[in-house]
Amino acid sequence: MAESKQEAFGWAATDSSGVLAPFHFFRRENEADDVTIKVLYCGVCHSDLHTVKNEWGFTTYPVVPGHEIVGLVTKVGNKVEKFKVGDRVGVGVIVGSCRTCDVCQQDLESYCPKMIFTYNSTDKDGTRTYGGYSDIVVVDQHFVLRIPENLPSDSGAPLLCAGITVYSPMKYYGMIEPGKHLGVAGLGGLGHVAVKFGKAFGLKVTVISSSPKKEDEAIKKLGADAFLVSSDPAQLKAAIGTMDFIIDTIAAVHPLVPLLSLLKMNGKLVTVGLPDKPLELPIFPLVAGRKLIGGSDFGGVKETQEMLDFCGKHGITAEIELIRLDQVNSAMERLAKSDVRYRFVIDVANSLANL
Amino acid sequence: MAESKQEAFGWAATDSSGVLAPFHFFRRENEADDVTIKVLYCGVCHSDLHTVKNEWGFTTYPVVPGHEIVGLVTKVGNKVEKFKVGDRVGVGVIVGSCRTCDVCQQDLESYCPKMIFTYNSTDKDGTRTYGGYSDIVVVDQHFVLRIPENLPSDSGAPLLCAGITVYSPMKYYGMIEPGKHLGVAGLGGLGHVAVKFGKAFGLKVTVISSSPKKEDEAIKKLGADAFLVSSDPAQLKAAIGTMDFIIDTIAAVHPLVPLLSLLKMNGKLVTVGLPDKPLELPIFPLVAGRKLIGGSDFGGVKETQEMLDFCGKHGITAEIELIRLDQVNSAMERLAKSDVRYRFVIDVANSLANL
Repeated sequence: MAESKQEAFGWAATDSSGVLAPFHFFRRENEADDVTIKVLYCGVCHSDLHTVKNEWGFTTYPVVPGHEIVGLVTKVGNKVEKFKVGDRVGVGVIVGSCRTCDVCQQDLESYCPKMIFTYNSTDKDGTRTYGGYSDIVVVDQHFVLRIPENLPSDSGAPLLCAGITVYSPMKYYGMIEPGKHLGVAGLGGLGHVAVKFGKAFGLKVTVISSSPKKEDEAIKKLGADAFLVSSDPAQLKAAIGTMDFIIDTIAAVHPLVPLLSLLKMNGKLVTVGLPDKPLELPIFPLVAGRKLIGGSDFGGVKETQEMLDFCGKHGITAEIELIRLDQVNSAMERLAKSDVRYRFVIDVANSLANL
Repeated sequence: MAESKQEAFGWAATDSSGVLAPFHFFRRENEADDVTIKVLYCGVCHSDLHTVKNEWGFTTYPVVPGHEIVGLVTKVGNKVEKFKVGDRVGVGVIVGSCRTCDVCQQDLESYCPKMIFTYNSTDKDGTRTYGGYSDIVVVDQHFVLRIPENLPSDSGAPLLCAGITVYSPMKYYGMIEPGKHLGVAGLGGLGHVAVKFGKAFGLKVTVISSSPKKEDEAIKKLGADAFLVSSDPAQLKAAIGTMDFIIDTIAAVHPLVPLLSLLKMNGKLVTVGLPDKPLELPIFPLVAGRKLIGGSDFGGVKETQEMLDFCGKHGITAEIELIRLDQVNSAMERLAKSDVRYRFVIDVANSLANL
């Protein structure tokens, strides 16, 4: 029996200033395959920032961002078998896909041409999707993840996007052979989780960063084996040809030549940051070292569950700064300057309870 | 017993005008591991043109180009067991490497940091190497290839560089699964051989070219299954997401976005042309389709022999325009305009006999 539309409340941006403000709206009714989730925590992803400011050019306002959601199930449809009321669950970058195409059949829903993003997308009922900077979300059970028991809700939330976005390419491009040398370029929300995955996979991990002041923390707190200041020619030169793989998480336009030079022959540079302008691609280093540059997005549902279970087993969480919902605008400003170690997470439920 | 230096004669460029003229010089004596070869035919590679005009910036003049050499053994050193006088042999892009490093041990001499190019390089005895636009070459037996009996000397010569440069990445990047769809971008010396390899591997092959006038020949003569005019938006649009791999042989700067759009998810674009300026690399298409761009050079000795044997077995040769040595300057001019179907080959021995 279909229920009626559900009242919801969150924070939305209404124009390309990107400033977020309180916003009342409706979620769809909880259909047979749906789960309604009370949002506990939601990570602040760089995509949220790009979207509220319409930097990628496809934002429809108002937009409620947020796709690193951990919450509690409050309602289940009559066909839902995976979850029950009270379960602790997660929602990532997508909440829908066609489920029938080739890539969906291969559990690669994130590459389905008909995928539905968690926010700023058109849902299957024709309404807009709104993200996790809000009190509740309503999601088809297929796109809802189980959160392993020992994984904290707050520092686990960023794994739903930042985590899977580095885990998926590390698996796909074979960057998981113990003893191999991984470079992690950029030490932000994605990079710092990549360091932890690298160590969990048994790799030697070198952080490549423009901020010398991150060295101590990278090594002592995140467990990196080495730290390379990318603006120091002597350090770069000493490391030429030493790495098997690099995962490039830098979201700004940056030169590829120095990174490619760090790779051994047959080395792989995998880019997961999303600069809004093209990079310069020099052909000689690719040809002369049989190197490749590959891309990857945020993974399918099955792999996201596998990643969460891996994180539970290995005690991998994000390093976070917990904020209230009404602090999100200043957090966005700091994020734009990469001034966060390493991910803002909004304490959504408590923020709303205290309003 | 060491013999004395050997007189040689060829055509050399002496400055960056790139104009070639007759040139007398000496080759080293035929040492114990060496083979002296009377050059019969030598292909005219785009690298020859880049080098004589110093377009890559590392030419030392005088330079005698030519690294697609087929000839007859006229002398063997006392340690040479692979060849005897009278054998028909080939020489490709390199004539030396350290033989001891990791990549040499893996038969990937073309990636050895100490490799010695067939021309415009410093030989192991400190002298300059000179290429195949000349009467004889002296080469360590390890770098000399056997020419299969049924492979013609003239149309077989371009396989020594153009052939292996497309064969090697097709093998390395797995572009050989029967039934898969290969795009060949650029229909010149490399591209037209890639079409033939593609068909021999059982692939569906589509040529992607800016020259509509090449369509007939691509399909009827080279055996391509389809032809795509890269400047026609409607044709491009119709082919979006249809190809598993593209081998990009275009030597000039060109946009990658249209080529990447032709690839299916997980598609591979392998670049073997060597534009002298960086290309623009858009990150979105790589990320959104988990696509990769890879490079590859001209392969090791073992794989070059494998490729020649494959060509012998499958009757694969280059389509050539045979020229005399004294026609090489006008041939270079035509090559610069891509006005050749599809490789110039110099009839070296007959040119010199008729001087």
